[in-house]
Amino acid sequence: MNEKAHRLATAIDHVGVAVPDLDAAIEFYRDTFGLELAHVETNEEQGTREAMMRVPGDDGTGTAIQLLAPLGPDTPIGKFLERKGPGIQQLALRVTDAQAASDQLRAKNLQVLYENPKPGTENSKANFVHPKSTGGVLLEIVEPAAD
Amino acid sequence: MNEKAHRLATAIDHVGVAVPDLDAAIEFYRDTFGLELAHVETNEEQGTREAMMRVPGDDGTGTAIQLLAPLGPDTPIGKFLERKGPGIQQLALRVTDAQAASDQLRAKNLQVLYENPKPGTENSKANFVHPKSTGGVLLEIVEPAAD
Repeated sequence: MNEKAHRLATAIDHVGVAVPDLDAAIEFYRDTFGLELAHVETNEEQGTREAMMRVPGDDGTGTAIQLLAPLGPDTPIGKFLERKGPGIQQLALRVTDAQAASDQLRAKNLQVLYENPKPGTENSKANFVHPKSTGGVLLEIVEPAAD
Repeated sequence: MNEKAHRLATAIDHVGVAVPDLDAAIEFYRDTFGLELAHVETNEEQGTREAMMRVPGDDGTGTAIQLLAPLGPDTPIGKFLERKGPGIQQLALRVTDAQAASDQLRAKNLQVLYENPKPGTENSKANFVHPKSTGGVLLEIVEPAAD
């Protein structure tokens, strides 16, 4: 086909870890393993307060550990913590066009959560593939914001 | 302290995903997201058949998705699949010296699984920090083989 395959991953963008206390988790990864806090924000859309932790020298093109704390119990991360406890919640692959990737993954009969990507961390566009379609992994696809 | 902090992470080495069928999982990540099979091996020590999947262009210094299939039900991955089903099983941080890192993490009162690191993928040395010590994440520390 001539169409560029926008579903193809260009990087492992991040690994998302559900945590009850964001500041404690930031401190743990910083003090224990020397990771650096690259970004922190509140994402009302996803119901999270979240942080991107990177190894020293990563300019943002590498793979981050994303710490995700819930804004309340009735949020995806709040429910995840209630159901499973803290731990790895998702794995995110970087793509060049989240909308095109969503459409292409749906065309391959994968269960994509949102019709259109939603605002993700740092003004990215994000969508999710249901664990039923991926062998048990909540896979995020994320298109970084244009510079 | 003068001692070099060997526990410090130099990279997110890989994310480990427990799968029941290695070949099917390799095909899924290749066909769906264009990841490439960079390495496959049987690790008798860990009771796994395992594959490293990388994005195109990753020379091995980036972050991989490690697919882990059990050699039998009475292995760590076999038990994980039985207990939790397929999904993300661990997160691995790269260090320069796995033995020194193990000792330093123990000195910080983290529960490190092995007294001495064991053989990991591609002749690496690997140890694990118990999820009880990390906020629910099975954290591997991995020292790549010398070139």
